[in-house]
Amino acid sequence: MTKRKLETSFSPALFIPEENLDAIVVIIDVLRASSSICTAFANGAASIIPVTDVAQAQDYKLKGYLVAAERDGYVLDFADFGNSPFNFTKEKVNGRSIVYSTTNGTAIINLSLSAHMTVIGSFLNISSLTGWLISQHRNVLLQCAGWKNRFNIEDTVCAGAIAEVLIQSNCFTTICDSTLAALDLWSLASHDLPGYIEKAAQRTRLRDKNLDDCLEFCLTADFTNKIPVMNNGVLVDLTEYNRIVPTG
Amino acid sequence: MTKRKLETSFSPALFIPEENLDAIVVIIDVLRASSSICTAFANGAASIIPVTDVAQAQDYKLKGYLVAAERDGYVLDFADFGNSPFNFTKEKVNGRSIVYSTTNGTAIINLSLSAHMTVIGSFLNISSLTGWLISQHRNVLLQCAGWKNRFNIEDTVCAGAIAEVLIQSNCFTTICDSTLAALDLWSLASHDLPGYIEKAAQRTRLRDKNLDDCLEFCLTADFTNKIPVMNNGVLVDLTEYNRIVPTG
Repeated sequence: MTKRKLETSFSPALFIPEENLDAIVVIIDVLRASSSICTAFANGAASIIPVTDVAQAQDYKLKGYLVAAERDGYVLDFADFGNSPFNFTKEKVNGRSIVYSTTNGTAIINLSLSAHMTVIGSFLNISSLTGWLISQHRNVLLQCAGWKNRFNIEDTVCAGAIAEVLIQSNCFTTICDSTLAALDLWSLASHDLPGYIEKAAQRTRLRDKNLDDCLEFCLTADFTNKIPVMNNGVLVDLTEYNRIVPTG
Repeated sequence: MTKRKLETSFSPALFIPEENLDAIVVIIDVLRASSSICTAFANGAASIIPVTDVAQAQDYKLKGYLVAAERDGYVLDFADFGNSPFNFTKEKVNGRSIVYSTTNGTAIINLSLSAHMTVIGSFLNISSLTGWLISQHRNVLLQCAGWKNRFNIEDTVCAGAIAEVLIQSNCFTTICDSTLAALDLWSLASHDLPGYIEKAAQRTRLRDKNLDDCLEFCLTADFTNKIPVMNNGVLVDLTEYNRIVPTG
């Protein structure tokens, strides 16, 4: 069986749409957008509408939507809450559609609309996600959200953790230096992930803003088996997606 | 004493000119542009004129310049030679000005003309380069050339090797995830650098084109103490630069 191609991109600025038209793109923003999105679906959210623009998020708020919106870690004043996964509780999100605007996460989601499929990856859904990726017959791009187009450690290490499972499945091969580097960094981090992430710039940023209470949670494997998938600009649970798009 | 800032950028696409106006930018293209440039100055080249455009290189050739030009590892037909450091022999380059156009190297050189100073780094000049960087009172950006705007392993590992010396000097500090990752990858690579580089995509590309004879040489520390520096669009040896620009 021909192995599928696995690649990694460390920044939205390095994403090449025309090279991923047939691929599944996995968006990784560990601290904290992709962790929050996975948590929202675990707690029964019906859908998440990513928006890049603050004004757009505000319009949705006026229409009665639940709005999660932050910039640089600060909750925008009109929003219901910000970007901590702890905000997306069952009480708040169950059965609801949530409009979501964050510093990095949503820009990259919109950016990869050109791919065959775009899904959300984090440590929280890693086993479910990797199992599903192995079951598909598609090349995979692990797209790190980074921070303001810069490389970051936490997304890279998560990409390495995902890549390790995919490569070990023997269904994927890689000649991509970014993937090989991510695997090596994961090999250094895996024995003590919270300890390794201590040095990450985003870890310091969250601590400085007293937003680091969710850090350990965001680094926890397999909190949920949900796989958020983009469908016409809206994130839905994979089960729902397969119902809407049966050939997907 | 306030420590100076050390940062690393993994791709020309991630370079931010306005953040490096006062910094020394070190261009790293281990396989093979920065290794070749260091070798050329070690062998007495008077200057190297980087050009991005093939037509421009051809114009220089008609004017009688020595021209080194390749695309994707292949020597352009009008050029005197390509991008192997072994081409830049004393017999060919001593006392001469060389026009140089390569796949990655020259674009990034032009891109960083906005910085306070732009110098060429490689394993071949690492001790001289790091010693000089420590002696200056400037922030430093290690700019990896990468491959067609992608991250690559060999430039990253060289950035890590340079960063290790700078951080150990206690003159520099970093909160840059790219630098921290480069340091970690260097810690994995340093025990057996040629063995580590075996997996790099560019290593395979060079082997496939029978261009890998220079690999071991390019990974050799301290072949020369020359530091190539950009001066008005032309690379000169640092000693010459200090003569022309005494306050540099």
